[in-house]
Amino acid sequence: MGQRIINKPDLSGFLFLAMIINKVEDFIKEKNLILNGDKIVVGFSGGPDSVFLLYLLNNIRDKYNLEIVAVHINHLIREDDARRDEEFSREFASRLNIKFVSYKKDVISYAKEKGLSVEDAGRRIRYNVFNDEAKKLGPNAKIVVGHHKDDLVETIFLNFLRGSGSNGLIGIQEKNRNIIRPILCLEKSEIINFLKSNNISYVEDYTNLENDYRRNKIRNELIPYIKENFNPNITNTIRNMSNIIKDEQEFIEEYSNNLNLIKEVNNNICLNIEELKIQSRAIQRNLIIKAYEKINGNRKDLSFENIESILELIYKKNSSFEIKNYRIYNYNNNIIFSIKKKIKYKKIDYKINEKITFNDYIIKSEIVDNTGNLELNKNIAYFNTDILKGDLIIRSREIGDTIKLEGFTKKVKDIFIDKKINKYNRDLIPLIEFNNEILWIMGIRRSSLYKINKNMKKVVKISFERVING
Amino acid sequence: MGQRIINKPDLSGFLFLAMIINKVEDFIKEKNLILNGDKIVVGFSGGPDSVFLLYLLNNIRDKYNLEIVAVHINHLIREDDARRDEEFSREFASRLNIKFVSYKKDVISYAKEKGLSVEDAGRRIRYNVFNDEAKKLGPNAKIVVGHHKDDLVETIFLNFLRGSGSNGLIGIQEKNRNIIRPILCLEKSEIINFLKSNNISYVEDYTNLENDYRRNKIRNELIPYIKENFNPNITNTIRNMSNIIKDEQEFIEEYSNNLNLIKEVNNNICLNIEELKIQSRAIQRNLIIKAYEKINGNRKDLSFENIESILELIYKKNSSFEIKNYRIYNYNNNIIFSIKKKIKYKKIDYKINEKITFNDYIIKSEIVDNTGNLELNKNIAYFNTDILKGDLIIRSREIGDTIKLEGFTKKVKDIFIDKKINKYNRDLIPLIEFNNEILWIMGIRRSSLYKINKNMKKVVKISFERVING
Repeated sequence: MGQRIINKPDLSGFLFLAMIINKVEDFIKEKNLILNGDKIVVGFSGGPDSVFLLYLLNNIRDKYNLEIVAVHINHLIREDDARRDEEFSREFASRLNIKFVSYKKDVISYAKEKGLSVEDAGRRIRYNVFNDEAKKLGPNAKIVVGHHKDDLVETIFLNFLRGSGSNGLIGIQEKNRNIIRPILCLEKSEIINFLKSNNISYVEDYTNLENDYRRNKIRNELIPYIKENFNPNITNTIRNMSNIIKDEQEFIEEYSNNLNLIKEVNNNICLNIEELKIQSRAIQRNLIIKAYEKINGNRKDLSFENIESILELIYKKNSSFEIKNYRIYNYNNNIIFSIKKKIKYKKIDYKINEKITFNDYIIKSEIVDNTGNLELNKNIAYFNTDILKGDLIIRSREIGDTIKLEGFTKKVKDIFIDKKINKYNRDLIPLIEFNNEILWIMGIRRSSLYKINKNMKKVVKISFERVING
Repeated sequence: MGQRIINKPDLSGFLFLAMIINKVEDFIKEKNLILNGDKIVVGFSGGPDSVFLLYLLNNIRDKYNLEIVAVHINHLIREDDARRDEEFSREFASRLNIKFVSYKKDVISYAKEKGLSVEDAGRRIRYNVFNDEAKKLGPNAKIVVGHHKDDLVETIFLNFLRGSGSNGLIGIQEKNRNIIRPILCLEKSEIINFLKSNNISYVEDYTNLENDYRRNKIRNELIPYIKENFNPNITNTIRNMSNIIKDEQEFIEEYSNNLNLIKEVNNNICLNIEELKIQSRAIQRNLIIKAYEKINGNRKDLSFENIESILELIYKKNSSFEIKNYRIYNYNNNIIFSIKKKIKYKKIDYKINEKITFNDYIIKSEIVDNTGNLELNKNIAYFNTDILKGDLIIRSREIGDTIKLEGFTKKVKDIFIDKKINKYNRDLIPLIEFNNEILWIMGIRRSSLYKINKNMKKVVKISFERVING
C-alpha cells in the first residue's frame, strides 16, 4: 500500500473515469458548488471517499484555478494504523503536488472532557480544524468534504427512525454555509469502482469515527434488507425525496424569514402572539424552532412534543414552559424565550415614593387621595397611612413565611401551591413586609392588615409593572 | 365465536374502557371528526378494528345523535369464512341495535375485468358501496373506517420505501373529504387489549384484502426489527413526523392555491411561464402536480423524474414531454398540459384569401404588394402569383413526401428528423401542395419553387398562427 499510488488506467477505466468525472462536474456546476479561483480546504483521511475527492479536485484544479490544502487529522486512536494513514495521506497529496497539513488530536480525551460521544467529539474537532485552516486561506475559503449518496441515505434513515421533522429528511446538504460536498451525487460503489479501475490506492476506513453502531446497522443490515425486499433502487428513491423536501423546507424558511417576526428584546427572543396566531401551523412551528435556535444556538433537543407545548402557550396567558435552562412563557401578548437565571434572595429597604427594580418588577408608590374611585387591578394594592410610621421591606420569599388573611393565617407556600405558581416564579415575586408582617405577595395576595376605608382622606398606593428581562 | 358478544367487563376493563374511549373522543373533538346529528356509514368487516369502531360509535351515538348504518361487504373469497364473518357482523350489529346492510361482491372477477390487483379492486368496491350507502343517508353523510396508528405507520413506510414526495409521508389522514378515521389515534395493541379486557368478540382478519405481501413484510418483519434495534417507540415517532409534514403540505397547498395560476383553456391546463418562473422550486413542483392532477384526475404515475422533466420545459421553448396519453409542452409562454389526440390524416382544397383551421393551425392568405419591405418570420411564406393558376391543397404528411430545395430534393421525413420534430408534431404540421409539389412544410421549411423577386408587383402571402387546443 502506498507504493503505486496512480497507475496508467486501462481503457475501460478511462471511459469510466470520464463518465464519473463528468457526473461530478455537472453536479458542481448545477449546484454552483465551486467557482473559479476558489480556495479550498479538503478533509483528507486517506480513505476511499477522500482519496477520490482529492483526485477529482486535482483534476479540475487548473480549470477552476483552485488553491487546495489537504488537511489530515490523526485522532490518535489505534496509533499504528493512524500513523500509517497519515503517512499514506501525506505521500498521496505530495504526488498530486497538493499542499498537505496534518494535526494530531486526542479525540478520546476531548470527548471525555466535553462529555461527548467519540463520534461527536471527532466531528467537532475536525470541523474546528477545517475552519481554522479555511480562515488562513481567506474569508471566502470553502471546506470540501467527501460525503456521498450512501452517507446521505444512511443519515436520512437515522433521522427517520430516530424521529425528526422534515428537516431531518433532507439528510446532508451539498452546500451548507461554507461546507460543500461535491461527491454527494455518487454512490459509494461508484467511488470504489472508480478507484479500483484506475488502480488508485487508499487506506481502509476502520479508524473512521463515523462508523458508529446505529449507522453500521443501517448500512450493513437495514439497507441491504430493503434493497432485497422492497426497492433495489432505494438510494436514488431516498435522494429524490430528500430533494423534494429540501426545496419545500427552503420555501418555508424563506417565507418565515420574510415575516420578520422574531425580535430580540433585552437578551430575550420574542414572538408577537397576534402575529403568530394568524400564521398556519407549519409556519408557527418553524418560528418556534427559529426562536429556540436563536437563544440556544441550534435546534437539537427540541422535540416534537416540546414544540407542541410551546405552541399551546399561545392560548394560555401567563403560563410558561421550561426546557434545558430556558423559560418560554406567554407574557404581555408575546411568547418570550429567556435564559433562566438563578434568582438570588434579595432584601431591600423601601421608602414610599421611591421607584425601584426588584427582579423583573418595577415597583413604585405614592400617597393618593381616597376618592372612592381608586384604580383597582392585581398590580395595585392600597394600605392605610399607618404603614408610613416605620420602614417597609421588599424581599424574596423565605422558608416559613406566613400571611394574615381575614380571620386566619396561611403559609405563603400554600398560596403559591394553590395558585400553581412554579418554583422559578416563586423566587421572582417580591413580598412587602412591614413590622414583621407580610402585607402583600405582589400580584398574588394581599394580607388583611392595614386596610383602607372610606373615612380615610389619604391612602398609600403601591403598584408594580413587569419588564421582560427573563 | 359469536355466542357471547358483550360480557360484563371486569374493573380493570372498565378503567381501560374509560381511558381509551376518552382518548378517541378527545381526538374526535380536536379534529372535528364527528358533529352532532351526523349520519354515518361504517365499514364493518367484523374484524377487531371495525368491531371496536362500531362499539365506540354505539357508545357515543346518543351523545352525538348519530344515525349509523354498518355496511358489510362479502368479497366471496374463502366462502365459508366469508359467510361466517357476515353472520357474525349481522349479529353483532343487531345486538347493538344498529342498522346493518351487507353486499356480496365478486372481487376476483372485478379485479380481472379492470386489470387491478385484488387489493385495489377490493378497496375500490368497498368505497363505491360506502359512497352509495352514504348518498342514501343524505348529502352530508360521512364514511367512517377503522384505520389505526399501525396502519398509518405501515402506509408511511410503504410510501417511504417505494419513493414518494412528502405527500406520501403524511400516510393516512384522519379526515379526507367525507371519509373519517376516528381511531387513527390508537395503536392496534390498544384495540386488541380493549376488546379482550371487555370480552368483546371479533372475527380474525384473514380475509382482509389489505394484507398484501409488502404491507405484511413491513408489519411482521421490518417494524419489529426497527422497534428492537432502533426505536421501540417508532409508531409515535412516525406519527409525529406525519403531523409535521401534513401541516407543511397544507401550508404549501394553500399558498399555491392562492396564487391561482392554473388556467383551463380549450380543455387544456395552462401554467403561465413568467408567473411560474418566479415561484420557488417547491411551489413550481406543487403547481406541476396540481396541473397534472387536473387533467389526469390523480397524481399517480407522476414520478419525481417526470416532474423534473416538466420543470425543465420552462426553459425550453417549443419543446414537449409525453407521459401516458398526455402531451405537456412549452408554447406561447405557457406550459400546456393536453390530452394527446390521435391526429387524423387530413387533406383540404384551399383557395387564396380563405381562412381555415387545420389541426391547431389557423391558416390564411392574401395577395399583397411586393413593397420590398415584406414582413418576414417563420409563420409566413411568400410565393409568386403562378400558384394562383391552379388549386392549392393543404394536407397532412404522407409516406414518401419529398420537397425540392435549392439544387436538390430532400425527404420530408429527413427534415423532421434534422429538426428533431417528434412524431406527434409531424402529424400536426400542415403541408402546402401545388401541382404535386410540396411548397411549404408550414413553419419548418419552404421549397425553392415559386420564389418571388423584386420585379414582381404582387405576391401571395400565406401565413398561420397556432391556437392551443392540444
